[in-house]
Amino acid sequence: MEPAPLIPYEQTFDALYGLELLGHSDDEASARVAVRDAVKQPMGVVHGGLYATIAESLASLATAAVVMPQGSIAMGLSNATSFLRPITQGTVHAHARRVHRGRTTWIWDVEIRDDAGRVCAMTRVTIAVRPAPES
Amino acid sequence: MEPAPLIPYEQTFDALYGLELLGHSDDEASARVAVRDAVKQPMGVVHGGLYATIAESLASLATAAVVMPQGSIAMGLSNATSFLRPITQGTVHAHARRVHRGRTTWIWDVEIRDDAGRVCAMTRVTIAVRPAPES
Amino acid sequence: MEPAPLIPYEQTFDALYGLELLGHSDDEASARVAVRDAVKQPMGVVHGGLYATIAESLASLATAAVVMPQGSIAMGLSNATSFLRPITQGTVHAHARRVHRGRTTWIWDVEIRDDAGRVCAMTRVTIAVRPAPES
Amino acid sequence: MEPAPLIPYEQTFDALYGLELLGHSDDEASARVAVRDAVKQPMGVVHGGLYATIAESLASLATAAVVMPQGSIAMGLSNATSFLRPITQGTVHAHARRVHRGRTTWIWDVEIRDDAGRVCAMTRVTIAVRPAPES
Repeated sequence: MEPAPLIPYEQTFDALYGLELLGHSDDEASARVAVRDAVKQPMGVVHGGLYATIAESLASLATAAVVMPQGSIAMGLSNATSFLRPITQGTVHAHARRVHRGRTTWIWDVEIRDDAGRVCAMTRVTIAVRPAPES
Repeated sequence: MEPAPLIPYEQTFDALYGLELLGHSDDEASARVAVRDAVKQPMGVVHGGLYATIAESLASLATAAVVMPQGSIAMGLSNATSFLRPITQGTVHAHARRVHRGRTTWIWDVEIRDDAGRVCAMTRVTIAVRPAPES
Repeated sequence: MEPAPLIPYEQTFDALYGLELLGHSDDEASARVAVRDAVKQPMGVVHGGLYATIAESLASLATAAVVMPQGSIAMGLSNATSFLRPITQGTVHAHARRVHRGRTTWIWDVEIRDDAGRVCAMTRVTIAVRPAPES
Repeated sequence: MEPAPLIPYEQTFDALYGLELLGHSDDEASARVAVRDAVKQPMGVVHGGLYATIAESLASLATAAVVMPQGSIAMGLSNATSFLRPITQGTVHAHARRVHRGRTTWIWDVEIRDDAGRVCAMTRVTIAVRPAPES
């Protein structure tokens, strides 16, 4: 992978769908997204891809924040999302927890909840950590 | 799940990120998305969540098109995406192929390719088919 | 699925590889397996399939124990295992925790640890709960 | 991972459950297992973990056969199995197809069929390819 230009948050996919990052550390991260038609599928429920996307963002961001200053890059390797219960209104609440920190892979479990605190989706994200390409 | 109001395509998540549906049958579906900053993550590559989202849309839509006229609904159960190679420009090309049609679950394999025809992501989507709730 | 004859534990796969069930409730289950060549792959480490198998057994058994008396059956729908660290000796310790109890699907997270308490594999198992076929 | 002693096939897990390898190349592999009580779960159907195990063996073996002579090792990273239809008798037929050959990861899709040729399980296996540890 050749290095690509950095893009300001305001122009990214996360900004397009409205990811609001609430905080992150080396083993946790959380965010939320306001529910509106623009994040739903035609049947009126939040699009399952949105949950996968939020999870991918949290895991990538929190891993990169640790490994980039050490000269490595974080690249998504896999994203496995289970859908448990639809969300139709309110806010999508996401919380990521690191469950493995290996030399070459980190694994995060992300839970998506609705306003009532019910788990609506769960994602397991595997992030590859690799030496940054020489510039 | 109580029935939610149908939303016109123009207001959905698929419209927000620019899904262009190219066709679908009971065992295949394809679509594409133009690459631009608004579908990328900050490192300048297409956001992994976009691939999961496109796959989810194709599998859901193609399943629903068959089962809804028969009085059933299609709900995403799981979405497992593997990321193989980043895309930075051009068009994201997606093709879904049904690999299982059971009584209560359908499974689709979706391949994401770049303009050079290289597979960049692969998703396995499981869709639950359930009787539609009485209205 | 037509009903198949029940098989005594002593003749099953679980007995073949040596699953020792330690306990189970409606939301937890645990077991262990003694490490020896017969559960390893040729490179001398415990076979990854063994972790997937133990997880499948715990989730199926603990779900079935609840739903069978209610006239339903439990059938594995999917099993997603991540391998973190090899085990070469001692005992494989498995602990399953139910993370979702829906009407038609239950989801379990299973952790596999070595004697030092390190997580060596993680499995997410989805079990379908269906009405038992009429006999 | 420190190097572990090689184990002859006859003493491994694959021998215990009866894996019969039929052939392998750098992008395909196939095997079969005779169905008997010792590969079933108590309900009388073949244990889901067996399918995951066969898939893991085929993918690992076929990857290792290529990369070990080049000084690398092959280690299972993840195994995602979907269960479609139970098998109760006859032979379990497995066929693995490589769907990605990257620098650090290979991905295999494995199909499990019954004697009637019906797909009964599908596994996506990700294998990490790493430099062999210095001896």
